[in-house]
This record gives sequence, C-alpha cells and structure tokens, in this order.
Amino acid sequence: MTEKIVRAHTNIALIKYWGKRDEALILPASSSLSLTLDAFYTDTSVTFDNSLQSDTFYLNDRLQNKTATEKVSTFLNLFRKPAGISSPALIKSTNFVPTAAGLASSASGMAALAGAANLACHLQLTQRELSLYARRGSGSATRSIYGGFVEWQMGTCAADSYAVPIDDADWDIGMLVVVVNSRKKEMSSREGMKNTVETSPFYTGWLDSTANDLIEIKKAIRLQDFQKMGEITESNGMKMHGTMLGANPPLSYWEPDSVVAMQLVRQLRQEGISCYFTMDAGPNVKVLCRLTDSEKIKARFAKQFNPEQLIIAKPGEGLKVLTK
Amino acid sequence: MTEKIVRAHTNIALIKYWGKRDEALILPASSSLSLTLDAFYTDTSVTFDNSLQSDTFYLNDRLQNKTATEKVSTFLNLFRKPAGISSPALIKSTNFVPTAAGLASSASGMAALAGAANLACHLQLTQRELSLYARRGSGSATRSIYGGFVEWQMGTCAADSYAVPIDDADWDIGMLVVVVNSRKKEMSSREGMKNTVETSPFYTGWLDSTANDLIEIKKAIRLQDFQKMGEITESNGMKMHGTMLGANPPLSYWEPDSVVAMQLVRQLRQEGISCYFTMDAGPNVKVLCRLTDSEKIKARFAKQFNPEQLIIAKPGEGLKVLTK
Repeated sequence: MTEKIVRAHTNIALIKYWGKRDEALILPASSSLSLTLDAFYTDTSVTFDNSLQSDTFYLNDRLQNKTATEKVSTFLNLFRKPAGISSPALIKSTNFVPTAAGLASSASGMAALAGAANLACHLQLTQRELSLYARRGSGSATRSIYGGFVEWQMGTCAADSYAVPIDDADWDIGMLVVVVNSRKKEMSSREGMKNTVETSPFYTGWLDSTANDLIEIKKAIRLQDFQKMGEITESNGMKMHGTMLGANPPLSYWEPDSVVAMQLVRQLRQEGISCYFTMDAGPNVKVLCRLTDSEKIKARFAKQFNPEQLIIAKPGEGLKVLTK
Repeated sequence: MTEKIVRAHTNIALIKYWGKRDEALILPASSSLSLTLDAFYTDTSVTFDNSLQSDTFYLNDRLQNKTATEKVSTFLNLFRKPAGISSPALIKSTNFVPTAAGLASSASGMAALAGAANLACHLQLTQRELSLYARRGSGSATRSIYGGFVEWQMGTCAADSYAVPIDDADWDIGMLVVVVNSRKKEMSSREGMKNTVETSPFYTGWLDSTANDLIEIKKAIRLQDFQKMGEITESNGMKMHGTMLGANPPLSYWEPDSVVAMQLVRQLRQEGISCYFTMDAGPNVKVLCRLTDSEKIKARFAKQFNPEQLIIAKPGEGLKVLTK
C-alpha cells in the first residue's frame, strides 16, 4: 500500500492576526495576510487501523504523550464524523524546521494534518474547505493551505472565515529568518492574544488600523510595489507589538538580539538596501526582502549572528500530496 | 554683590506626559505624575548687565551658540516683560548630571532658569506661578518646581496647567538609573510625541487609560502601597512605548541593553525583590525601588553593566536658592 503524505508550509503574517472574536471556533477579530515560506514545512500521513487501541501520534519519529495526541484526536474527529469513521488512526508527522529556529510549527502542522485527514477519510474537500478545517486546529494554519501571498478573511461566521490566495509571490520576494533564542519561557500566542484583547486599551485602534493596512497592502501587492508592501508590513507588525505593550501586565516577546536585528534592518535601508522587519509572538525577526538581495543581507547579519541563526526562505507552495 | 543661584532637580515621570494639545503654549494632552530625584540637578543664575551687548549664556562654563542662547532669551523675555526690564542678561548654568547619563536636562534646566529669572526680575512669583512659567520652557520642567511626588495637572487653559506637590516621598523610595548608550541619534521627545499624536491609532486609548492610571497611582501613593505604585508605573511606561510603536513610521527608543535591563528587573521580582522599570524618550531604564534595596539591586546590575552606568537616586527637593 502506498503511503500518502501531505506537505504544508508555514507562513509569516505581514498583516497580523492577533486576537479572536470566538475562542472555540477560532474566529479572528480581524483579517490577516501572510507569505507562505518554502523553507519550513511539515509532512504528515494519517492511516486508519483497527488493530490500534487508540489514536497513535508520532512526531519526528517519536511517540507523543497523551496531551499532544488528544489535541490531534480532537482535530481528526472533525473529519471522522462526516466520513462515518470511528477507527483509531496512526498519525505520522515530520517537521522540517531547523531545530534552532523554534518557529511555530502549528501553522504547517495543522494544515498538513487537515490535508492528510481529508485523504484518509476520502472526503474530497476543496482547498477552501480544507482552510476552514485547518482553522479549527490553529488560526495561522488557515493560511497555510495556499502558497504565496494569502489572505485569511475574518468572515461573518464559522462557515466563511477561510483563506484565499492573493498572489503567487513570483516576483523577487524573499525572507531572511533571524533566529533569536529566548531566555525565558514565553507566553503562548494563544494566551498572549487573549490577554491583549481583554486588557489593552489599544485593541480597538489596532483593529481599525489593521483593517486599513490590509486594504493598502493588497494594493501594493497588486502593483508589485515592494517598498510600500514592506513599509506596511513593518508598521503593522510594530503595531501588534505596541498593542501587546498596552496589555496589563505589559507583554513583550523582544530579546536584546531582536533589537539588534531590527536596528540592522534600519541600517541596511539607510544604505539603500530595501528590506523590512516583522516579528510574531516570539523573539525571532523576519526580514522581508528581495530574493536577489537575500544573500547580501544574510552576509551582513552574519557579522552579528551565527550562521545557524540565519535562514533564507523563498515563497512556498500550498498543500501538496507526496506519494512514498 | 552676592550671586544668587537657583537649584532645580530633574524628575522622572511615573505617569507619562506624551503629547501636547497646544504646541505653542505647551499644554499637555493628559496629566502626568513624577518623582523628583536628588542626583540630577541644574544650578543657574541670572544677572542683568547693561554693559553686555546681548544675552550671554554659559552652560557648564562654556559660552553657548546663538541657537541655545536664543532659546534662553525667548524664555527670559516672559519674565522681563512683566518686570519692565529690557537689559541684557548674563545667564550661568551648570548641569550636575553624570556626563555618561545623557539624561534630559531640560526639566531641571528650565525650572532652575525660571527660578533664577524670578529672582533677577524681583517678580516674587509663587511656586505655582513658577510652575506655569517653567512649563513654557519645557513640559517636564513644570514638575521640577516641587520635590517628591508631583502631579502636573493638564488644566483647562494656559493659566491652570501647572504642577502640584502630592507627597514628599519620604517613605523608603529610591530609583536606580541605568544608563544605556544609544548608537544612533534619537528623535527628540518633542518631535516623537508630535508624530505619535498625529499618526498613532492608539493615542485615544493612551489618553483614556493614562487618566485612569493617574487616579490609581495617587491612591497607591496615599496608601504608601509600593507594589501597586510600581505596577502602575511599569504598565503606564510600557503603554507610552506601545503608543509610539503605533506611530507611522513606528518609533522606538529601545536599545538591546534596555531589554537586558528590563529583563533583569523582571528576574529580580521573581526572586522577591520589589522593583519596577520605566523608560522615557531614550534608551535609559529607570528602576523604581525601595531605597533600602537600591544597593542590592545595583550590585545585581553591576554584573551586566559598568559602574558608571548605574546611579542610585533618592527623592529630591523642589526649587531652592543658594547664595554663593
């Protein structure tokens, strides 16, 4: 029997998703827009097997504990139910993320799992439907169904909050991921966004301005206006972090080296190299740049960071099925 | 003839002043509250002398250029006019701020100048009136007329936007100033706050929440509740920096070592030492603490910073006249 493996790539939001309007259904408080990256992905297969006593989940060839397995089982049930399947499943997942990166793998992980579950259950879901399913696993996974620039439309209800492809990003776009290690255990993005929604006096201002940023960045992408796209990306990311600083207690994911990386990006711009930073719920800094400039930019970062902290990524593809 | 020198101390805002509602009159968009510090001050004398051709300004024994002198002259005119004086003045000012500190000296500088001009013009202004005058020189100078905890009431017009003393801070209060050097020239606080008011979508949220923080910190000061006072201080300062991150383009005064210092404060709290940080329009970090804990806290910072970067300050006094 051939084993069908589904590959999904991670994505980095240029217009951020920060806050839910419905915690259970993972409905976002605003629409967001991301770039799918080729360098980071997850391969996953799902096989139903009645000889198993219960769902069995291997991640990177390691059998996972009850908590991790239950999360996967709950997600799989969303597919088993409409398919009328009650068999236990063997789930095998491999994260292709450089170990040091510590990049959130929930986006690619849940998107790949949705794709593999669809195949195993023979549901023949469309990409749009897969996006709706992936959302239930992790908000950012909604966008990882598609490649290139992707918009996650907040929608009006559970049925229309899905991603749509915007542009294949096939026009000299790249990203340098600068991996910054954190000294302390961070607050998860799920907890962080919940605290922000509940306590930050900036949250209304964030929602209003991010809606406008989304309109403007889509214009810039359509016109392939790199500078405008970069300026909006950097501004929107910093607004998200500003919104967090407004939470009570204040929330910050920045490490000293995050500031070093952001200052270097500003320095490079002063030297005429067009590049822009963004940050998520962690200390890493992602530098949006021209792919043709990426090696030059990496070389400059290599003066202040170790080589294994610097990863160049090209725009990545959407979900795809590999047959082993 | 005895020379009368007026001394004013600088102050650090616990509830921040960030943004004007009137640029010309320096009327703030919100009320603020500060702690006057003994370690940083300015001594100033003003003498009218008809043998001078024009106002002559010495700062730290150096004759100042036209731009600096004009700023002082314009301010002095506010006093000369009601006194009916048209003579040129000799202004001698000395900043007692450790050189490396790079702490804004405009608060103590303009407050001392207001005090010295009052004496030279024999205007016999009250402290409240001096506060109104100092405001015209620099917003934060409004508060440096008084010692201890001081509120600058935003008021309703130019005539009632002045400072009032809140508490003499004579209850085991100290501050460790951590001096962090900046690699680049910073945006002045005047420019920074103007940009923030004009472009940050968080500005309304900032004004609403800082008004509430002021009410709460005054309660905490009245009850001598150090923890509550510290929590509000840290939260309000981070909100100010969050508001700046919302500006377009985003504004940040943080350096890598600013993050190091803030992380160390959080670490000390986890170890049971009650201390809280705040930051202004620059990379320095000010640690509000118990004066009795200040040496212990300084010793911990000395593992990551040079001794000359660490200055312990006690609560300072208001304006006073020294006779040489």
